[in-house]
Amino acid sequence: MAIKALIFDVFGTLVDWRSSIAQASQKHLSPLGLQTNWLEFADAWRQEYDPAMEKVRSGQRGFCKLDELHRDNLDLILKRWGWDQVNEVTRQELNKAWHQLEAWADVGEAMTLLRQQFLLAPCSNGHIALMVNLARHNQWHWDAILGAEIAQDYKPQARVYQAAASALGLAFNETMMVAAHSSDLEAAAKAGLQTAFIARPDEYGPGLGESKPTTRVDVEAENLLALAQLLAKTN
Amino acid sequence: MAIKALIFDVFGTLVDWRSSIAQASQKHLSPLGLQTNWLEFADAWRQEYDPAMEKVRSGQRGFCKLDELHRDNLDLILKRWGWDQVNEVTRQELNKAWHQLEAWADVGEAMTLLRQQFLLAPCSNGHIALMVNLARHNQWHWDAILGAEIAQDYKPQARVYQAAASALGLAFNETMMVAAHSSDLEAAAKAGLQTAFIARPDEYGPGLGESKPTTRVDVEAENLLALAQLLAKTN
Repeated sequence: MAIKALIFDVFGTLVDWRSSIAQASQKHLSPLGLQTNWLEFADAWRQEYDPAMEKVRSGQRGFCKLDELHRDNLDLILKRWGWDQVNEVTRQELNKAWHQLEAWADVGEAMTLLRQQFLLAPCSNGHIALMVNLARHNQWHWDAILGAEIAQDYKPQARVYQAAASALGLAFNETMMVAAHSSDLEAAAKAGLQTAFIARPDEYGPGLGESKPTTRVDVEAENLLALAQLLAKTN
Repeated sequence: MAIKALIFDVFGTLVDWRSSIAQASQKHLSPLGLQTNWLEFADAWRQEYDPAMEKVRSGQRGFCKLDELHRDNLDLILKRWGWDQVNEVTRQELNKAWHQLEAWADVGEAMTLLRQQFLLAPCSNGHIALMVNLARHNQWHWDAILGAEIAQDYKPQARVYQAAASALGLAFNETMMVAAHSSDLEAAAKAGLQTAFIARPDEYGPGLGESKPTTRVDVEAENLLALAQLLAKTN
């Protein structure tokens, strides 16, 4: 089946959350006299992401926007670091750093190329406002903002991928999920979508991201620009 | 309160549905030997729009995408014209004409200007796929696609306007609804949004659209370009 739309994982696949969050944390917290390894701080904050979403997926907590989970997790990490003195305004400002993450270097050019051929939308666990702000920050042109908020559930629940395809008026197998995470793609494939893996080998630090998929995918490429070139030839 | 986002009515406000639907109807039906006043045909099709949505708003019918209502209404009008011989494929193709309506002449330039200052999204009763296709057809750059499908209800229900503001992470009064229809703006204002009226005096035929609002609005302009120029000065 010919692909008509690409939907994208965003955190890690399109943006380098780790460097961006480390820099933002330093920027907001070091003026308070706080010092730490900011990459470790970013990693710790991010590590609470999946457990927080699992409470929603399992029904233990109602659906809420990712800002809320990010904020709960920030409070948790600040407590762990013994930094209870960080005030409310600083916490709110730092939490907004997730709206201003920097894209990996190949993304801008690749998105322009891919848009000539396909409908493009994020299919992220980030909510609509967060995705809108990331797009403005990185000058992306999405056709629509899809993902968790539309589906009122979090990936890797099948309905998140399926709701994105349906919102575009497409069959599941006319829609391709693009991600740098095998678990995301495995779930998308089970949900009936086509899948493309791109490598982000440094996502969690040098050599600590996925270089190769550990699940069967329809296409794989070393980055998004390589994927754009590959799909231009094959679709 | 400063305006951060503009959300737009689409049918009539941004696109000339009447000429577009008349032309598409002629294109699909006249090869079958059918002749009529195609503008009257378009008007009749459109006149069934609000009664069909009212069934959803009143709870008589569950929420469905606008394609489905447009199709039911097309079947109704073809029956009324005595054109039962029109086959399924032609009906499906003609129904897609709502995805390819032409913008009024001032819209493209105005949208580019407005995007420098505000987040922009449709807040239409059209569903996401229809809005995505209209944007591609007219080369618009939306920040997100909001409106009926997100809210799972149809304007003028208050929750449709409010869901659009909330999806952007904004307060209702940081969001301005732009429309060429007083009834739409009256409902948006009651829902807590700011409102802008633009005139589309020929929407239903020469001189048969609204030239002036019949309700109190925050801003009014003779078209979208004039609104862009006005908001550039005042916001």
